[in-house]
Amino acid sequence: MSERPRLGITVGDPAGIGPEVTAKALNDSEIRQLADFVVFGDHRLWEKSDGGSFAEFDYHPVTADEFAEPAAGITLVEFPEIDYSAIPVGSVTSAGGQASVGYILAAIEAIKDGRIDGVATGPINKEAIKLAGHPWPGHTELFAEKFDSPDVAMMFAGGPFRVVLVTIHVSLAEVLRSLTLERVLGTVRLADRALKDFFGIAVPRLGVCGLNPHAGEGGRFGHEERETIAPALEQAREEDICVFGPLPADTIFRAAMHGKYDIVVAMYHDQGLIPIKTVAFEESVNITIGIPAIRTSVDHGTAFDIAGRGMADPSSMKSAIRMAVRMHRARQESQ
Amino acid sequence: MSERPRLGITVGDPAGIGPEVTAKALNDSEIRQLADFVVFGDHRLWEKSDGGSFAEFDYHPVTADEFAEPAAGITLVEFPEIDYSAIPVGSVTSAGGQASVGYILAAIEAIKDGRIDGVATGPINKEAIKLAGHPWPGHTELFAEKFDSPDVAMMFAGGPFRVVLVTIHVSLAEVLRSLTLERVLGTVRLADRALKDFFGIAVPRLGVCGLNPHAGEGGRFGHEERETIAPALEQAREEDICVFGPLPADTIFRAAMHGKYDIVVAMYHDQGLIPIKTVAFEESVNITIGIPAIRTSVDHGTAFDIAGRGMADPSSMKSAIRMAVRMHRARQESQ
Repeated sequence: MSERPRLGITVGDPAGIGPEVTAKALNDSEIRQLADFVVFGDHRLWEKSDGGSFAEFDYHPVTADEFAEPAAGITLVEFPEIDYSAIPVGSVTSAGGQASVGYILAAIEAIKDGRIDGVATGPINKEAIKLAGHPWPGHTELFAEKFDSPDVAMMFAGGPFRVVLVTIHVSLAEVLRSLTLERVLGTVRLADRALKDFFGIAVPRLGVCGLNPHAGEGGRFGHEERETIAPALEQAREEDICVFGPLPADTIFRAAMHGKYDIVVAMYHDQGLIPIKTVAFEESVNITIGIPAIRTSVDHGTAFDIAGRGMADPSSMKSAIRMAVRMHRARQESQ
Repeated sequence: MSERPRLGITVGDPAGIGPEVTAKALNDSEIRQLADFVVFGDHRLWEKSDGGSFAEFDYHPVTADEFAEPAAGITLVEFPEIDYSAIPVGSVTSAGGQASVGYILAAIEAIKDGRIDGVATGPINKEAIKLAGHPWPGHTELFAEKFDSPDVAMMFAGGPFRVVLVTIHVSLAEVLRSLTLERVLGTVRLADRALKDFFGIAVPRLGVCGLNPHAGEGGRFGHEERETIAPALEQAREEDICVFGPLPADTIFRAAMHGKYDIVVAMYHDQGLIPIKTVAFEESVNITIGIPAIRTSVDHGTAFDIAGRGMADPSSMKSAIRMAVRMHRARQESQ
């Protein structure tokens, strides 16, 4: 019998919709059956304006200092020292950034010493993190640092697709400057490894996009395919990685939908995210690969404009939870 | 009572799947009811290897020189001087390129003097056209020249989307060099005009993509949004065009699917074609806008690898036909 997973959830910025979508996801009894949960947050963040609570489930409250072992069901790890009155709903604050980081660091410690098996993270706010004096532009960099993993990548999974990005939050001009053989090869290796370790795929098939229209059409529309991407794939093949490409980006996702590739390697942000967000918006999940841990995330922001109003949709949080559980099961089976 | 449309179809390169998909589309009685058709091609291209014909419908054969007026039903305009034995199925030949151009030029003449109301074009082969000594890289440029329309654009329609491209078959590096205020504004104007003239939309709503991830995120990931695209949209608004943007390309198509925009203006090939080809592959249609005529096209190539084998799928040709008929109706109603 496989053990029940113990999954962490960080609620993200206290002023955003993270606490609400966490509670709403756990209100779903099907979700609650998937694992024992450890929420890093606070019951005060679930209070509604009418005095009620977003949380319609029982939980075991414990302070972060005292948290030793997940209880059966839901454990709520709280930080009594945080003054939430300094973090008004819907506002970017240094205190909100500080709290967000606190939840994540506690979850990472719990992963490292084996108290939890992985974490699904709620949305944080870059500006708030910066105001709190922290250097990480986002979760990915924070996890990379704490797990001593310099080479990480963002993977997205949703609907019929898995996608991994070679470059992320940079201008297209910078994509052209920073696309190197090493970068493409590095991302291909990470994707191959992650599908083996966390998705139970013995020989992953990777479809790799070209950079230019029609993957350059034999050099007529650009040289990056021949000079950078193709040599990287040649090297990957020598390492027994099953890669196809570089392939035209406008048709590769259709082929992936039909099961031809286990993952698509996209060269830049919009190339990979346009199909994911168009086809599988609500169920899209963000996964950090390259770290020796399971970290999934909602694929939306803090949505300060609707925070505290009870309108937030927990679909993405549910997907992040389901994905983390699935990755945990696949990792157990492959071990 | 509105008149029955008279729609031209060019079969494209004789060696490709164009003749087959034309016949298969017209085998569909629902398609035949939409219009009187004038096919520019040859009955010899419909012969099967077993002696039968792909065409399961009656037609009125006529030579190109004699063609004066479409008959009720299907007229087949033939070019008896063409030696089809010089154009083996599945091969790139100068004679195939020459024939392709001949069909198109005859159709354009018929549009100009009012014998037909528009044309749906079958797939041609760039290399064959070049071998035949013609300068046009594709249909779009040929139609632009013959209709004295220097400013044309490619529009794609399929499923829930309409998309128009600011730049087309160029490398990403060239996209960065060639993206100017004038180009963005010119494409916006063409799209607005086309939706008014050929789609019956009195006040079209145009959603315009940024170039960079998150539409540049306030200049953090690139400056083209602020320096080029936004000023172009400002100018368009002064011309009473209803434009929104520049907007993040990863979420704009989802909004368009939900009816928020009548068309999405994409800055480059893959940005516009990834969502169309992923979501609406079989039914995607290519439309030339900026010319005073209706020209739709299949959204696939000559597929020489499967030509002559009876395997070709006529869905895209049917979509091109339906779209041309719809555009003709809308144009009549708006006049």
